[in-house]
This record gives sequence, C-alpha cells and structure tokens, in this order.
Amino acid sequence: MTAGVAAGRATSTIEEAKRGGKNSLVLVLSKGGADMAYPALILATTARALGMDAHIYFTFWGMQLLTPEGRKKAMDVFPPDMQKALAAKFPTVEVFMQQAKQAGVHIHACSPTMDMFGMTKASLVNEVDDVIGASTYLELASRPDALTLFI
Amino acid sequence: MTAGVAAGRATSTIEEAKRGGKNSLVLVLSKGGADMAYPALILATTARALGMDAHIYFTFWGMQLLTPEGRKKAMDVFPPDMQKALAAKFPTVEVFMQQAKQAGVHIHACSPTMDMFGMTKASLVNEVDDVIGASTYLELASRPDALTLFI
Amino acid sequence: MTAGVAAGRATSTIEEAKRGGKNSLVLVLSKGGADMAYPALILATTARALGMDAHIYFTFWGMQLLTPEGRKKAMDVFPPDMQKALAAKFPTVEVFMQQAKQAGVHIHACSPTMDMFGMTKASLVNEVDDVIGASTYLELASRPDALTLFI
Repeated sequence: MTAGVAAGRATSTIEEAKRGGKNSLVLVLSKGGADMAYPALILATTARALGMDAHIYFTFWGMQLLTPEGRKKAMDVFPPDMQKALAAKFPTVEVFMQQAKQAGVHIHACSPTMDMFGMTKASLVNEVDDVIGASTYLELASRPDALTLFI
Repeated sequence: MTAGVAAGRATSTIEEAKRGGKNSLVLVLSKGGADMAYPALILATTARALGMDAHIYFTFWGMQLLTPEGRKKAMDVFPPDMQKALAAKFPTVEVFMQQAKQAGVHIHACSPTMDMFGMTKASLVNEVDDVIGASTYLELASRPDALTLFI
Repeated sequence: MTAGVAAGRATSTIEEAKRGGKNSLVLVLSKGGADMAYPALILATTARALGMDAHIYFTFWGMQLLTPEGRKKAMDVFPPDMQKALAAKFPTVEVFMQQAKQAGVHIHACSPTMDMFGMTKASLVNEVDDVIGASTYLELASRPDALTLFI
C-alpha cells in the first residue's frame, strides 16, 4: 500500500466514523499458536495503516504469546515444512509483535489469566503496555466507534 | 470491585450507551472446553457487574456445557496438574454457570445444534432459559447497543 | 420459516437499522473444519432470510474450505458415526456453500493467506466472489450497520 492510498483510506475511515462507523479495532486473542497470532497481528497493523486505533487484549492461551518461551513455541502449531515456508515470507511472531508495537498497536495482558496460571508481570515480554481485567476490556469494546473481535 | 466502583462504572456505561455505546453483551459460545467457558463466564458476569445486559448463546460444541455430563468433562482440556491449580483458585464451570445465572446472565440453548445432535430439552441443565435459533440470536446481536463476540 | 414471517422479520430488521441497528453480517471464518463452517453458513443464510446483507471472509485454515479437496475433508473433524448422523440431517459443506451463494451470501477469499500458503485463484472453488485483503475486510466491518464475528 502506498502512503497516498493509506492516507486516502484513513481519511475515509475517519469520515465513516463521523457517520457512526468504527474507528477503533479491539481484538481479544485467546489462542497461543501462530495460526491465530498472524490474523490478529495482520488485522491490528492494517487497522493502524488505515488510521484506526488498535488494541490486542491477550487472554487465556493467548497469554503464552506474551512470555519469551511461549512466543518462540508459537510456530509449533505448524508442521516443520510449513514453518520453513512461512519463515520465508512472514516475520516471526516475535518480530511481528515488535512491528505492531512500533506501529502503535496497544498490547494488553489479562489479569485474571495471570492469577489463574500464577504468572508475574516480570515474566512478560517488553511489548506489554499494561495488565487489565475484563471490565477495562469491556469499556474499550463498548465505545461507539469500536469494532471488536474474539480470536 | 467495591459496590461504589461498580455503581460508578454502571453509570458511566449507561451514559456511554446514550451516546451510542454498548450496553448489552451477547456472546456465542461454540466450544465445549473449560478453556473457553471461563473467558465467556468472566466476560458475562463482569458485564452484569458493570450494569450491562448479558447473554450467552451456547451452540455447537458449546452445547456440551449445557448437559450435566458434558459440563463435568469440560475440565478435561487441561492436564491434571493444571486442573488442580485452577480448582484452587476458580469455581468449577458448573458452579460458575450457576453464579452467572444468579447474576442475571441469560442462558440460551441452540435449536439447530439440538436437531443436529439429537438432543432433547429434558437432557439440558436447569440453568437454560430457552431454546432459540440463529434468527433470534441475530435479533439480539443486531440491536444498536449490543456488543457481540463469537467464542 | 414461512415467507410471511421472514418478510415481517426483514421489515423489523430494516426498521431497527434505521434506529442504529445492524443490517449487514460480516463473518471471518478462520477454521477449516465443518464444525465451524456449519455455524458460519447457518448464520449467513439466516441473515439473508432476515433481509440482511451477508459476507463470509474465509481466512487462514478457513481457506481450505475454498479448495475442492479441502472442502471434502471438512467433515473429517467428526468421528465416522457422527458424520453419518449429520449427513442424514444437514447438507454437505459443499452443497450448503452453494445454497448460501444462491441466497446472496458474498464469499471472499483472503489474499494474505493465499500468499502465505502459495495458493492460486485458479485452485479455488467457483463460489468465490473475489480475493480481498485485511483492509477491505476492515472497511466492510467498520460500516455503522455491520455486525461482525470472528469464527
């Protein structure tokens, strides 16, 4: 996508929002494999390119993607030959998450999951913005301009 | 959460709804394991605490959670040591579903799934409010104030 | 559902949309098994019967449902006796997808997934309307009248 096209789309998205459309993408990522991390990261970074806000609320198995070891194991959902093919075309989940963060995607960790699995904030990767609960997620997702998906 | 905080949040959620925000959480729960039942029940009971309406439409594998045997097997998605750790911190799916029901969460069973799997209303747990189809779900989810997720 | 009931519901849905309700169902289907294809197809065809627009954006594992071989394998998620029981009551995924298409459901293939897995347009089934990316999906899902779910 060229900058011109991106700018044009961002403008139309903002105009859409003024007419009642959505200008904020709020994803819940509940799975720990790269097969669902890729769609979440593609949607979130595309939303940013379109001028939308973007949030990913990592919860349950998705919290594995916020630990250094879990993030490395994310590709294990694919057979070895598919891992090679993907590695030739797409960034790793770790690199993709860093790119998303640099593009302004907000990375939220789930506090009930941390309680459930005995995880500490110190064990999480640097990209995490904050640790939030279900009520904060619902506040983000309840905004009139929010488009929310459970992945 | 204290009652004061809950009341404050409920008020702000209602005010938000007046501005076009969401005041009704309508979840589809299509999975039969406790790993997805917990997020659904946490979201639905949190929505009630925030003063929102809350619905869970159990469909496909999710219908297993509405039978006494299926609900007991829901923890089998976890290895035994994880089951013990969870049991020490969280209610069982059965108890959590009863708490959700008492908090005013609406429990809907899916009629096409019952046809598909030859299930009868008599075989379902007491918490079920009604048996509805896809058109009734879409009517609930199409309301201007509805926030809907497919889990 | 009789035509009269369908017409009545379609009218009320359109009236609802004028008050800020949803009149367009935009599904993402990311799974390749019949267990998630059925809910997506039931929701999309029901939406059409209610007078709503309906779109299914097939992505990731869901793209397997858009190849002739993958669509045939979709029932393999069920044990053989369950496959027989389902076949007695419901159309196959192939026939159901053709019925959805005839009812006006839009079938979108995902371009990033095609890149990822080295798929060509020529290898896809006839029901595919077009190949779109995440930005086109977000434009569809951002409309004020869109109800969107990630399956």
